[in-house]
Amino acid sequence: MRTAEQSSIHIGEILCVGTELLLGQITNTNASWLARQLTLLGISSYYQTVVGDNPDRMRQAMRVAADRSDLIVITGGLGPTADDLTMAIAAEVAGQPLIEHAPSRAAIADFFQRLNRTNITENNWKQAMMPRDGLIMPNNNGTAPGAIIEFEFNGRPKVMILLPGPPSEMTLMFQEAAAPYLEKRTSTRFRHHFVRLIGIGESAAETQLKDLIDRQENPTLAPYASEGEVMFRVTQLVHSDAELDNTAELIEEIKSRMGEYIYEIGTRSMPAVVKDLLNERHLTISFAESCTAGLVSSTFGELPGVSNVFKGALVAYDNDVKINQLHVDSASLEQFGAVSEAVASAMATGCRDVFKTDYAVAVTGIAGPEGGTPEKPVGLVYLAVAYEGGFSVRKIQIPGNRARVRNVSALNAFDLVRKTLLAREDGQHQS
Amino acid sequence: MRTAEQSSIHIGEILCVGTELLLGQITNTNASWLARQLTLLGISSYYQTVVGDNPDRMRQAMRVAADRSDLIVITGGLGPTADDLTMAIAAEVAGQPLIEHAPSRAAIADFFQRLNRTNITENNWKQAMMPRDGLIMPNNNGTAPGAIIEFEFNGRPKVMILLPGPPSEMTLMFQEAAAPYLEKRTSTRFRHHFVRLIGIGESAAETQLKDLIDRQENPTLAPYASEGEVMFRVTQLVHSDAELDNTAELIEEIKSRMGEYIYEIGTRSMPAVVKDLLNERHLTISFAESCTAGLVSSTFGELPGVSNVFKGALVAYDNDVKINQLHVDSASLEQFGAVSEAVASAMATGCRDVFKTDYAVAVTGIAGPEGGTPEKPVGLVYLAVAYEGGFSVRKIQIPGNRARVRNVSALNAFDLVRKTLLAREDGQHQS
Repeated sequence: MRTAEQSSIHIGEILCVGTELLLGQITNTNASWLARQLTLLGISSYYQTVVGDNPDRMRQAMRVAADRSDLIVITGGLGPTADDLTMAIAAEVAGQPLIEHAPSRAAIADFFQRLNRTNITENNWKQAMMPRDGLIMPNNNGTAPGAIIEFEFNGRPKVMILLPGPPSEMTLMFQEAAAPYLEKRTSTRFRHHFVRLIGIGESAAETQLKDLIDRQENPTLAPYASEGEVMFRVTQLVHSDAELDNTAELIEEIKSRMGEYIYEIGTRSMPAVVKDLLNERHLTISFAESCTAGLVSSTFGELPGVSNVFKGALVAYDNDVKINQLHVDSASLEQFGAVSEAVASAMATGCRDVFKTDYAVAVTGIAGPEGGTPEKPVGLVYLAVAYEGGFSVRKIQIPGNRARVRNVSALNAFDLVRKTLLAREDGQHQS
Repeated sequence: MRTAEQSSIHIGEILCVGTELLLGQITNTNASWLARQLTLLGISSYYQTVVGDNPDRMRQAMRVAADRSDLIVITGGLGPTADDLTMAIAAEVAGQPLIEHAPSRAAIADFFQRLNRTNITENNWKQAMMPRDGLIMPNNNGTAPGAIIEFEFNGRPKVMILLPGPPSEMTLMFQEAAAPYLEKRTSTRFRHHFVRLIGIGESAAETQLKDLIDRQENPTLAPYASEGEVMFRVTQLVHSDAELDNTAELIEEIKSRMGEYIYEIGTRSMPAVVKDLLNERHLTISFAESCTAGLVSSTFGELPGVSNVFKGALVAYDNDVKINQLHVDSASLEQFGAVSEAVASAMATGCRDVFKTDYAVAVTGIAGPEGGTPEKPVGLVYLAVAYEGGFSVRKIQIPGNRARVRNVSALNAFDLVRKTLLAREDGQHQS
């Protein structure tokens, strides 16, 4: 039974219910996951809201959302306890009574039977009480069913989608039941491309593309900063998957202006780009780390399937380790200090010998908070990449705290491998 | 200059600005982090809101929040780009003009000088435009300063705290400047003690303490799970720092029931506990890592001042590295496989020889998603700790994805050091 006409859904918002979110006990991954789904469905979203398990504030939040959006996706508060009021309040806002939904009652009984639990407490049956005209979504990962409620609010057709709070239940229910419903109710899609840059600051990058950003038609161009790099998003609004991709021209224009800084047009991270470059060429790599203490290696090790290219790493936190394991000259350490071009290049060269890899990267620097001097302040980092017959070095001064110095050092270590590898290939092509 | 009377702040809410949040490109970890800080400060929170970089919706969201809360903590939109409008709109809502803040302009110039960048574009100076009566908070991890704005709204005193969006900048600024301000403006505090356990599951731990949890008075006891460990929070509500701490009795009761699992009563992480244990005894440590690929080392290296105890680490991703660098017997590798008790203990013993440390820890396992077999499934991990004259080994089977297997392995590696070290001391005391 449908009470509202089947108009297109253009604007949606996300409302998450849960006191544990307000206390910060859990991070709201439901909101970001759902936001991505709405974006992919071409539904624009202008608000996300979190409220606790409080009837007045829940009712108020639902009414505010219904007033300004076509769709409200609500998570949480569908469980069996006295706190769980979302379904009842949503039914009230939609102007529908709650009635027992027989298939949901049977599904709850079945769920407990599969768990071999016979002591089903009275509050569990509450989860079978559903808004009269709701489309019920079964919960195939738990007990609380969800609902899609179509209703009128201030004379306009609205939709509420109620999903359980636990992410494993929420995502499955959305994919199985809510997404197919929404696909029929939307007429547009967004097509996204990402351009990732390194070696230029956010504001300098934006200045170079300001005219394109300001043009803001279809596709649109938007900048955003990440730690140590810059990203631009190219977004095209389309009305069907068959519609021509018109983003190529804009991406080409960005490439022609900023090509030297672009390391990825797509979704791969810097370590993944380096992994693929090495993999395609059947090359191997190893790492020698001082201030990053294994972060470069660990970041690389996060990537599945990295074992084809990754041999090992040596964390040389102590100078004795640099001398004994990486064969860094103790006179160099004495003369130039551990944080120096000479020691970085010796570490990289020694590392390549130890692990017998095509490339080896070394990082040595002062991560802080202690250890800085006027000549060598906190944040000073030397990076080196060794290859057969040579090496390249990069000196950087990274502002920020210990965590940031370590993260930006690691990012630059991968970038130095990438640049060195590509420059050597260019050189070989020329010769 | 203060425009509002210094009343107590009881109710606060969090407003996060950023289109990337609405698109789901990033998860809102700022909201959960800030929510925990407000909770610790005794500030109740009933709402969290996300809006995009849109002036009308930002203005509206700030006004709604100012109407219902004493405090609005706002993150994001302080950067140099044309999108970044938070400061201007907050000033407008507070009824204050924006004026250039000379120290902030100088700090921005200084930040770029340290980066050796001379092409400071015009939009960077925008970040020095501040509300006339704002208390300015310096950004020691970036360029955009923050502000605390005291103002009147509908005749009542309100506070807005504006923080940058990048988490490393936001958290540092909050800790350095916003938290000390809020401590003076709140009359209640929560006194928290954390009891951290390892080696027991959340529900088993909760069952053992259920009567204490249900008692729920002052102090309260609340469980929450973290990856691979269990934490309980003991919380006392006090009205002044002078008020007697009445949590000791409850903590003693928890200790008497679960002492064998408790590794920390306080706020230190497992790696920090191990660092302190080693430091107090003037002992040194090194790591040999296979599936964790540097994560144990990197996690240890995050701790400031670790260089007293930490010598180095070897990431032996490849079996050749285990043989050549750690002197693992190739026959053992052949017979038992890389993921075995024999290889774990040989790696630890070899690592201790290489780095000449008092303790050495080895991790070898199958992180997945590929590489599992029926005999050695994904998640199987062997840990070993070598010391003078001996070693101890732990075998664990970790459920979950690659990231979880790596994280829980690292946590257990530190725990095995801790347990081994304490057991040896007990043994020595007895002899």
